[in-house]
Amino acid sequence: VSDPDFIADLEREARTGFPEVIFGQGKTPEQVAMIGARILEVSRRLLVTRASADQHAALAAAHPGATWHARARAVTVGHDATPRRGCVSVVCAGTTDVPVAEEAALTAEMWGAEVVRLYDVGVAGLHRLLERRELLRDCRAHVVVAGMDGALASVLGGLVGEPVIAVPTSVGYGAAFGGLAPLLAMLSSCAPGVTVVNIDNGFGAGFAAGRLNASFERLLARRDGA
Amino acid sequence: VSDPDFIADLEREARTGFPEVIFGQGKTPEQVAMIGARILEVSRRLLVTRASADQHAALAAAHPGATWHARARAVTVGHDATPRRGCVSVVCAGTTDVPVAEEAALTAEMWGAEVVRLYDVGVAGLHRLLERRELLRDCRAHVVVAGMDGALASVLGGLVGEPVIAVPTSVGYGAAFGGLAPLLAMLSSCAPGVTVVNIDNGFGAGFAAGRLNASFERLLARRDGA
Amino acid sequence: VSDPDFIADLEREARTGFPEVIFGQGKTPEQVAMIGARILEVSRRLLVTRASADQHAALAAAHPGATWHARARAVTVGHDATPRRGCVSVVCAGTTDVPVAEEAALTAEMWGAEVVRLYDVGVAGLHRLLERRELLRDCRAHVVVAGMDGALASVLGGLVGEPVIAVPTSVGYGAAFGGLAPLLAMLSSCAPGVTVVNIDNGFGAGFAAGRLNASFERLLARRDGA
Amino acid sequence: VSDPDFIADLEREARTGFPEVIFGQGKTPEQVAMIGARILEVSRRLLVTRASADQHAALAAAHPGATWHARARAVTVGHDATPRRGCVSVVCAGTTDVPVAEEAALTAEMWGAEVVRLYDVGVAGLHRLLERRELLRDCRAHVVVAGMDGALASVLGGLVGEPVIAVPTSVGYGAAFGGLAPLLAMLSSCAPGVTVVNIDNGFGAGFAAGRLNASFERLLARRDGA
Amino acid sequence: VSDPDFIADLEREARTGFPEVIFGQGKTPEQVAMIGARILEVSRRLLVTRASADQHAALAAAHPGATWHARARAVTVGHDATPRRGCVSVVCAGTTDVPVAEEAALTAEMWGAEVVRLYDVGVAGLHRLLERRELLRDCRAHVVVAGMDGALASVLGGLVGEPVIAVPTSVGYGAAFGGLAPLLAMLSSCAPGVTVVNIDNGFGAGFAAGRLNASFERLLARRDGA
Amino acid sequence: VSDPDFIADLEREARTGFPEVIFGQGKTPEQVAMIGARILEVSRRLLVTRASADQHAALAAAHPGATWHARARAVTVGHDATPRRGCVSVVCAGTTDVPVAEEAALTAEMWGAEVVRLYDVGVAGLHRLLERRELLRDCRAHVVVAGMDGALASVLGGLVGEPVIAVPTSVGYGAAFGGLAPLLAMLSSCAPGVTVVNIDNGFGAGFAAGRLNASFERLLARRDGA
Amino acid sequence: VSDPDFIADLEREARTGFPEVIFGQGKTPEQVAMIGARILEVSRRLLVTRASADQHAALAAAHPGATWHARARAVTVGHDATPRRGCVSVVCAGTTDVPVAEEAALTAEMWGAEVVRLYDVGVAGLHRLLERRELLRDCRAHVVVAGMDGALASVLGGLVGEPVIAVPTSVGYGAAFGGLAPLLAMLSSCAPGVTVVNIDNGFGAGFAAGRLNASFERLLARRDGA
Amino acid sequence: VSDPDFIADLEREARTGFPEVIFGQGKTPEQVAMIGARILEVSRRLLVTRASADQHAALAAAHPGATWHARARAVTVGHDATPRRGCVSVVCAGTTDVPVAEEAALTAEMWGAEVVRLYDVGVAGLHRLLERRELLRDCRAHVVVAGMDGALASVLGGLVGEPVIAVPTSVGYGAAFGGLAPLLAMLSSCAPGVTVVNIDNGFGAGFAAGRLNASFERLLARRDGA
Repeated sequence: VSDPDFIADLEREARTGFPEVIFGQGKTPEQVAMIGARILEVSRRLLVTRASADQHAALAAAHPGATWHARARAVTVGHDATPRRGCVSVVCAGTTDVPVAEEAALTAEMWGAEVVRLYDVGVAGLHRLLERRELLRDCRAHVVVAGMDGALASVLGGLVGEPVIAVPTSVGYGAAFGGLAPLLAMLSSCAPGVTVVNIDNGFGAGFAAGRLNASFERLLARRDGA
Repeated sequence: VSDPDFIADLEREARTGFPEVIFGQGKTPEQVAMIGARILEVSRRLLVTRASADQHAALAAAHPGATWHARARAVTVGHDATPRRGCVSVVCAGTTDVPVAEEAALTAEMWGAEVVRLYDVGVAGLHRLLERRELLRDCRAHVVVAGMDGALASVLGGLVGEPVIAVPTSVGYGAAFGGLAPLLAMLSSCAPGVTVVNIDNGFGAGFAAGRLNASFERLLARRDGA
Repeated sequence: VSDPDFIADLEREARTGFPEVIFGQGKTPEQVAMIGARILEVSRRLLVTRASADQHAALAAAHPGATWHARARAVTVGHDATPRRGCVSVVCAGTTDVPVAEEAALTAEMWGAEVVRLYDVGVAGLHRLLERRELLRDCRAHVVVAGMDGALASVLGGLVGEPVIAVPTSVGYGAAFGGLAPLLAMLSSCAPGVTVVNIDNGFGAGFAAGRLNASFERLLARRDGA
Repeated sequence: VSDPDFIADLEREARTGFPEVIFGQGKTPEQVAMIGARILEVSRRLLVTRASADQHAALAAAHPGATWHARARAVTVGHDATPRRGCVSVVCAGTTDVPVAEEAALTAEMWGAEVVRLYDVGVAGLHRLLERRELLRDCRAHVVVAGMDGALASVLGGLVGEPVIAVPTSVGYGAAFGGLAPLLAMLSSCAPGVTVVNIDNGFGAGFAAGRLNASFERLLARRDGA
Repeated sequence: VSDPDFIADLEREARTGFPEVIFGQGKTPEQVAMIGARILEVSRRLLVTRASADQHAALAAAHPGATWHARARAVTVGHDATPRRGCVSVVCAGTTDVPVAEEAALTAEMWGAEVVRLYDVGVAGLHRLLERRELLRDCRAHVVVAGMDGALASVLGGLVGEPVIAVPTSVGYGAAFGGLAPLLAMLSSCAPGVTVVNIDNGFGAGFAAGRLNASFERLLARRDGA
Repeated sequence: VSDPDFIADLEREARTGFPEVIFGQGKTPEQVAMIGARILEVSRRLLVTRASADQHAALAAAHPGATWHARARAVTVGHDATPRRGCVSVVCAGTTDVPVAEEAALTAEMWGAEVVRLYDVGVAGLHRLLERRELLRDCRAHVVVAGMDGALASVLGGLVGEPVIAVPTSVGYGAAFGGLAPLLAMLSSCAPGVTVVNIDNGFGAGFAAGRLNASFERLLARRDGA
Repeated sequence: VSDPDFIADLEREARTGFPEVIFGQGKTPEQVAMIGARILEVSRRLLVTRASADQHAALAAAHPGATWHARARAVTVGHDATPRRGCVSVVCAGTTDVPVAEEAALTAEMWGAEVVRLYDVGVAGLHRLLERRELLRDCRAHVVVAGMDGALASVLGGLVGEPVIAVPTSVGYGAAFGGLAPLLAMLSSCAPGVTVVNIDNGFGAGFAAGRLNASFERLLARRDGA
Repeated sequence: VSDPDFIADLEREARTGFPEVIFGQGKTPEQVAMIGARILEVSRRLLVTRASADQHAALAAAHPGATWHARARAVTVGHDATPRRGCVSVVCAGTTDVPVAEEAALTAEMWGAEVVRLYDVGVAGLHRLLERRELLRDCRAHVVVAGMDGALASVLGGLVGEPVIAVPTSVGYGAAFGGLAPLLAMLSSCAPGVTVVNIDNGFGAGFAAGRLNASFERLLARRDGA
């Protein structure tokens, strides 16, 4: 199997710190396996998001270490072997937001971050978050995942002093318009400095948080090396 | 001055409990004075919303008791004479929401409600609301006024046991799209039972809250009369 | 079966008067049964909206009193045992609006309200509503359910003196845009004081009406207790 | 003054029954006068919509019979000289809809129709329309002008047996979105057979109603001639 | 089988000239048969739009004369027995618009109109329409059905002197946005007096054209009777 | 006067065939003069679009040959000195589209094209275009400028065999939504191969047509040189 | 099999240089075969876009030369027999854009153009395009196919001196809104002169590029013939 | 002057690292001075965004050190006194984006960051950015400001290994829809990990970048202190 149209961006890891990531949706298992193989020639890490069990099977045939993450709907190679330094949080509002939250958490872990997960702390029962906020103390960045009104991003954004990255989800119906309601609300957050990624884009938020943490680690290493 | 096209709905107070209200915007002072006069023939109360000082002057010429409410941009007749029974709250997120909040408060007062005002308690500084929530204890309904992310509606909706009516405001810019962001967020509130009125429609929310309170009073009176 | 991500908001009934409600859609029967069990540890009432027969079966295995309401697509525990005091109406425009109307009615009943149902009285045949309006006389609030042009909300809003809560439905096609047309129309209602909930959100409207009624009952009890 | 870019469609009256109409907005008085003069070379009727007093003055300099219609914001030549046969109605919801309604009425009159005007009969006070519906009995078509929720179109559409043409207006604020709310509602009317023109397009609706009436007169003439 | 929620609007034929019409989509065959039976108690005509073969079968069991119209996806009773007087046209742009065009044509026939069908005359090959325009000469109204750019409505609207009713269809893809492109284009038609119905609403356009024709016939009859 | 933030892209003419163009709107006369001066150091041509008379004056002070084009709202240097080879057309629907059409024509002339202007040939009077189509015979590309329904693009696209570039204009009101209606219609044109530029972007269309013509000339020169 | 509603535009090839094209989606294999046969009576070329294997089979039964192009989802007759003169490029951003890119390439080939394909050169790895730009040197036009942010159109548009036609694709999720994001971005491209076709409309872009190339060949032929 | 409705969130600096910021737009000079005074009682820093010269004057009367930043349209107290440690970049596409870029830069400086400004490097002249990318090497985060197609965010996002925060601006016209085009494009960026703030929200992006840098400095201080 080969795809003449695929030009792997093999220098990406050197340039940006992370190898090319495969967006599984809409690709055949063969395409995923072929592209994955090419990336693994130049990197020890591989991440396939929006993956299927079939895609995992095709990859695992060649790379027995390919792992299937059901809740995050993702496949990884090298997830456990990546050393963890520094910590970020992933906070989500309801149980239906969990797949997106897990995608974020897994991506941050692939970047080498410890992840504090704090799920089901939506603002309709505010005490759930307030009672647990100490858990977030040592995190260098926070990913907030919420659908419907997206209000959790503003509430958290008013409580912490680290970067907050908000992910609107397509949870909710009617005038939530497939995630448009929380997207607009998060972009209009009354808590300053909240930044936003695309609807359901747990990967993007986890990537941003993980990159931030890795970028801190690199700076610390440079400082310590001096 | 007379407007042959205006058919006053003079039975409205008997039918719905409140006389016809004049929406001032886009009307000349003469039109407002003429319509106001016709309503005051059959009612002791008059409310002009989105009014101008000129409209107030035109009305005050004939009705010296016509009062100008600058913050609510409204004119009333009979505001002080209306006896107050029962209480509702008007809660708002920021200082720029105050004109809409005042329109709501004034309208509820015209229906005969006491109004507890709680302003500038946006969720980016959550403690401001939490420390003052006792003030809301005796209210029969709550009007929440917020722009930007509209998150205050969900937070309050999770704290109280009475009807919550949310008013999105056109405060905010960019992707707030003139109030669309808080409108969609409030319609998608994760706190169940929050109902919503149009953008900047403080009048509508105050009307709903005031009518609810008046309707309670009517029931209480009927009960006590039995 | 257990879901470590679910943090039950067990104080919600004490705080707001109603236990946490399960939104069935997108949850497995096992999740619904597990969450339901946890809620029933602290409450005698349970409501699952957007439920499936499978979810009912999973719940009924542990709680034989779990009832399936086909028209409302909901499961309840404690529906019949909840005493009814006070009355609200649910009015709808056409037969296709009935599932949403039934969800509203059932939710209000779970809050302890009697419900007057008035269905298929759309404004294209106005006499159907006008001839039956006496039925609404003793209601403390009205839920209006309508798709297409949503005009029923304005017509009813001009006829009654109690709170009106409008539910736009996704009934209609083309430029009704999945409920957007009646949503915007209801938000722009020419009858003042109409409040609105999300598209197809019968639950939200029934919750608001039921809470309003319960809140009035509480007031009466306090008054009578004094 | 001459405009080399203007190619008058001088056969339009022969082809469609009405001479070219000038949309005044955005044109200079000179342009209007020049185009008007060219049309009046081949027709005895002239209609300028969205006109200004300046444009009227420029036209009246050459054509003393040019009349200014303030409420319709239009200029006509030949309005009074056009014989009236057959009748159509123009019904509107509120006083702020009157300019659009007048534009419709004037246009229909220019086509030779008698116009029954029925203004300020919005559905929040339904009795106003119901008590006057006899006035509409002899009309061959009805133009309904309404902003906000546009509900009047559906209510009237369910009461009459003749063609109904609905005009949404940009009256209303917030989620009325400059007329989008009544536009969508009218397109989704539950009364079958209602047709719709653009927001604030009183001219288009009056044109359609007038053309319909003229087309029927032509038919009668042909029949009587046979 | 019976549906307690259905209140037949049995006076509708007397009031508006046409019996209630059943919108088949989303109804069970039993519901259609039951509602159809109730309408046929008071009328000799029945029209079911957006119908299925199953719904036809259920109706035909009781009413052998119930006819299935595959291209229009409709069921009728009394279609052939309705006498035809006067004529309207249905013009469409492409073969994919035919189902909507047929729904319009059938509905107009049920109102008693002869229908001239002129299909597949889109403006990209303008000569097809220009060569056939004589066929439209005796029509009292024209229904134009077009998707994509909706340009046919403007072209036809500039050629004829009778009422033009435009139906946008959901034909086209991408930025046609399910019919939004032709809907907006038709509402903004540069040919004055074009009126518009909802996307894919062939029924509404046929109803309007048929009612117009019937209303002409009624006037002619009254005239001839005088 | 100097603007340290402006980095002139001085190689652009070599790379793409045309020097950098200044978008005048929102810039001060000084900024325009400064940027213009820097461009004229490396090119003999300068084009300022959306310019004001003040900007022209500032430029003309240093470059007496700077010309003001009132109808196109543009300033040029070197317009008359640019030799014209090959021809393109600019066709527009109504007189209000002329400023956008002129911007397109001027831009194409700056690229060295002869321009055939055909204005005021909207489809509501189709014969105006059909009678003049011979004028377009020798053009290598056609720019079509139209607002409202944008139908002219489809009609012309079906008549010619050369590239057609459509420019929607913000002419029209209500549901034309500032040019959205013709934009969507043109993107959905039933005439294949029509390409589209942004609303009111006469510059972009003239640029594309001019570049196409220049690119033809370059090829011809290369061929002739071989 | 015959379709009385289909009026073949048999003069289209003479008028515009290309025979009528069949849009396969939503047509039965029989309809495609019937329409295809009628077109092949007057042309040697046939193109069916958005085709299915079944439609290919139905056509191939009568025309053994009918070829199935799986990646472009299209059927052609006469593809190989069409002589190729001149060259255009098709450039795309990612592997998921390939079907749209192939539709563009095939259509341009049917017009007689050589096609340079350059796939998977999205701007997140800019060097891929920069290193290969020499391949584009001899092309007369460029088709750029990209989803998500559509940025490739602007980057390429700043690098070349020939016409650039951009095709937004529905690749991407969330706020890409089915291709709306790249559509708006391409319409707003900062590289002047980029023109745009509808979302996923590879056919339209290939048609425009192919027609441009053919139109230049015609010019050369005329020149050489002189 | 005093505003009883303003509840200063005086603990915000302790909680989140930055004192409350005043959004100047829509506030009177008196309100700004009053709120500013209250904030300066508990903090040494003050930032007023979207400020006017009048607001600056009112503040400067009491606080002579209040500085006016014309390009950023902002007022600061303590800007120069804030020690700078660590560096972030602000990159923008065109000269019209500069006010938003300056707002971002100033805000980051108020958080204590050095700011590398790189302006006017839009992707239509890609070499401008590529030649200067070394300037960005030591930055800990990048703010990208761009209107129109927003493509700069994706291009930069593919070149660097640190957090990228994108700000869409309302620069551009027509289908840029006041910044919607770059907003959607940036949310859909093909460069992973780009996060986005609201349209024109330079403040938000600068706040996020500044907070990120400060948060890293805190980490370093803690590390060094250990």
